[in-house]
Amino acid sequence: MDELRERLALIHDLKRAGWLLSWDQLTMMPPNGTESRGDQLSTLDRFAHELFVSDEVGELLEGLAGSAKDGDESIDAALVRVARRDWEKARKVPAELRAEITRAEVRGVPAWAEARKNSDFQAFLPYLRRNVELKLQYIECFADSGKSAYDILLDDYQEDARSEDITAVFARLKEELIPLIREVAAGEQVDSSFAHGHFPVEKQEAFGREILERLGYTSEAWRLDPTVHPFATSIALDDIRLTTRYSEADLESIFHTTHEFGHGIYEYGIDRELNRTPLAELNSMVLHESQSRLWENLVCRSRPFWRFFFPKLQELFPDQLGGVNDEAWWRYVNRVEPSHIRVEADEVTYGMHIILRYELEQEIIAGRLELEDLPEAWNAKMKEYLDVDVPDDAKGVLQDVHWSGGSFGYFPTYLLGTIASVQIWEAARAEMTDLDAQMESGEFGPLREWLGDKLYRWGRRVPPEEMLARIVGGPLDAEPYLRYLKAKVADIYGVKV
Amino acid sequence: MDELRERLALIHDLKRAGWLLSWDQLTMMPPNGTESRGDQLSTLDRFAHELFVSDEVGELLEGLAGSAKDGDESIDAALVRVARRDWEKARKVPAELRAEITRAEVRGVPAWAEARKNSDFQAFLPYLRRNVELKLQYIECFADSGKSAYDILLDDYQEDARSEDITAVFARLKEELIPLIREVAAGEQVDSSFAHGHFPVEKQEAFGREILERLGYTSEAWRLDPTVHPFATSIALDDIRLTTRYSEADLESIFHTTHEFGHGIYEYGIDRELNRTPLAELNSMVLHESQSRLWENLVCRSRPFWRFFFPKLQELFPDQLGGVNDEAWWRYVNRVEPSHIRVEADEVTYGMHIILRYELEQEIIAGRLELEDLPEAWNAKMKEYLDVDVPDDAKGVLQDVHWSGGSFGYFPTYLLGTIASVQIWEAARAEMTDLDAQMESGEFGPLREWLGDKLYRWGRRVPPEEMLARIVGGPLDAEPYLRYLKAKVADIYGVKV
Repeated sequence: MDELRERLALIHDLKRAGWLLSWDQLTMMPPNGTESRGDQLSTLDRFAHELFVSDEVGELLEGLAGSAKDGDESIDAALVRVARRDWEKARKVPAELRAEITRAEVRGVPAWAEARKNSDFQAFLPYLRRNVELKLQYIECFADSGKSAYDILLDDYQEDARSEDITAVFARLKEELIPLIREVAAGEQVDSSFAHGHFPVEKQEAFGREILERLGYTSEAWRLDPTVHPFATSIALDDIRLTTRYSEADLESIFHTTHEFGHGIYEYGIDRELNRTPLAELNSMVLHESQSRLWENLVCRSRPFWRFFFPKLQELFPDQLGGVNDEAWWRYVNRVEPSHIRVEADEVTYGMHIILRYELEQEIIAGRLELEDLPEAWNAKMKEYLDVDVPDDAKGVLQDVHWSGGSFGYFPTYLLGTIASVQIWEAARAEMTDLDAQMESGEFGPLREWLGDKLYRWGRRVPPEEMLARIVGGPLDAEPYLRYLKAKVADIYGVKV
Repeated sequence: MDELRERLALIHDLKRAGWLLSWDQLTMMPPNGTESRGDQLSTLDRFAHELFVSDEVGELLEGLAGSAKDGDESIDAALVRVARRDWEKARKVPAELRAEITRAEVRGVPAWAEARKNSDFQAFLPYLRRNVELKLQYIECFADSGKSAYDILLDDYQEDARSEDITAVFARLKEELIPLIREVAAGEQVDSSFAHGHFPVEKQEAFGREILERLGYTSEAWRLDPTVHPFATSIALDDIRLTTRYSEADLESIFHTTHEFGHGIYEYGIDRELNRTPLAELNSMVLHESQSRLWENLVCRSRPFWRFFFPKLQELFPDQLGGVNDEAWWRYVNRVEPSHIRVEADEVTYGMHIILRYELEQEIIAGRLELEDLPEAWNAKMKEYLDVDVPDDAKGVLQDVHWSGGSFGYFPTYLLGTIASVQIWEAARAEMTDLDAQMESGEFGPLREWLGDKLYRWGRRVPPEEMLARIVGGPLDAEPYLRYLKAKVADIYGVKV
């Protein structure tokens, strides 16, 4: 066990070093460093991978496999289970395919960025085609897993996720969301005139930091920096890096920042005993997104949150916000409005953006959709689900980076995480009856500690489905999420739901 | 050769990744990340080292040893020469000793920082003792090299440097510098009243960047960030990171920044053909310091430099500098004044700070000086060389970080580099007769290109002594340096020299 731990610790170090290199690339690195950074990252990845897939690790795992009894909940037992699962998966992908996937990603991402700039899907098509080809080869490596092609992809983001379950959950959402969105669109929109104007970055940053510090950010263990596409990463459990994006035309940065805080606080909350093991890595994208969405939406779009913070925001921007109250602001940050871009979507329409992608991915992987027909299929679904006409591919099929880097199966985790966030929130509220009062007085410690105890500290010790069940008492369930959305819509728009 | 290059490229990547981790630690990392950063750095170092000292590399080098003919100046021949030299040295140090040296450094540096804070040499003494013990064990590893103990240490910073030569050069300096310093001290000091006051960091930073951009910094390939102890590092040949330190009480940051620029431009100027090989690493600390000192002193403390830049500085700080002219400023930045702290020393007294350390290091390594007597020996030499009374050990023997990290043999390279900088400057002036006129019009491109052609682009292709000889036509020589200092002193102080 000591030998296994030692080796896994070295792999952990190499991976985290790589995460720092990636963070630096997106926040600090001068642009001409790109090519060398590619070399450095691929070298780190290569060593971490080779060290892990070695026969020695296999033998160590083999030797330890029998030592844990059924139901053994010790860290060691979890470590062997998780490492064995990862090892078996990693061994199945030949080094050559792995390298080819990385190369295709390195080429695909800048090609996508260029194509999006020019709204030129044809220019991106060959890269997309290559990524899909490689993804199908990747799926082939797991032909003996008994899983469907798409489920093999899902497994990389959520252990043992099944598209059958997801499709059922999403069907339920479609049933409710499509009419709900239509109803809101037919009614009167909330006022947002005060939310546009000039909001200097320094003030937004100061306000973002004020929120973060209330939520649990400390400068001893965290950083916040601007970037193009916000993300969070943990270089170490005590070195959490958030990034956000500022536009001087609006205050959307608040929600980027609090979304990334949710990712960061999950990592920060992992039990220090798990450090330098795979148990300190993220459990599942679904659980991770549940936390980014919980802090972004359930906390930061709530009435009590803004009862506390709006006066401070108003003080920072008196010209724009002097004439409105916290209730008007709350309505604004919760307005529902179909739009083209997923990352700008409100809570209600967001789901349809994801379902659209999920459905298209399944068609692509099953070979039922020709890639040249993808823009058309995209636009048709946008019309059907959101009644939105897509003016060009930059605002349509080219808007997201994921497919250019070969990430298929990732999108559904955003929505599944959002669904889970409401279930977890309800569980928290059931135990903390004064949660609203706490938030209204700027107090987030008890919530943070509750989440830390139930979820964060466990890292990967408990498989994700079981982890969720322990917190919410059952499987993923769309109903609380639908109830939550409908109540909000009724509250804001007076729509009968 | 391809196999050797491939392996060296991976080692190069691991090392540069480590440099980024170190840079981040000193500029960006939240403080609680320290412990994990130590793990990450030692893991990267371990892989780079193991990969390099392997038998496979030895066999590759053996196989290639005969392929280069005498006088072969090709990149391949240089690569084999340099890699073989490094490999043989690296193989001689057992992994256990290497790890122990690293551990002692990791413990020694914070212990020193704490001891310096409290001016408590006794608290630092056990760490210093451990470092010296380990250094003596390190020297033992090279017992068959035919070198003296101190020369073995010197070799880590300047290939084949000999203390015999250094002692002779330093003796010549002492002969001249000690009386020169006394003479200046006896005369009238230049006015520096205008140089103290309140200089906001943002303005200093803007001015520093203005200088850097004139010198050759571009935001495409460089960064500049604040830190506690200024340094420069190259994450890649196209990713140069400078750091500097700002004090709002004075404008010393200008000289930190331009000093580090000298290090940065050397790295930036390395031939891209040498990338991902050991030939792209630094040739010698002497040559490297020659460039930091050349840009800091010969360029940035020169009259023509300030004829161009002083009006801009004056415009930024009209309250403080409105009443003086560029000549008064030039005299101020070149004033000579014995003081306690090496890094704040002027060009004339600087040498004595180094000679003092060099002499003490030799005594320590030879076992002729008991470590508990070190403060007393330090203070006696400060009195003898600079007529300065040391008030406490924080301002004396505890001021520098080097010994706490086990760096013995490093100090002399600062002064040797400074000596070389004047030789190189004279060679440049001999070829570029309008250098002063160029600097006076803010034009540094020709100087940068000349240095790039003669020195930077070569990387480690040519051994350092030979490299210097090619540029200046002979060996290291104190006379140009002495002439330069004396002329400056005569100019400013009217002292007859």
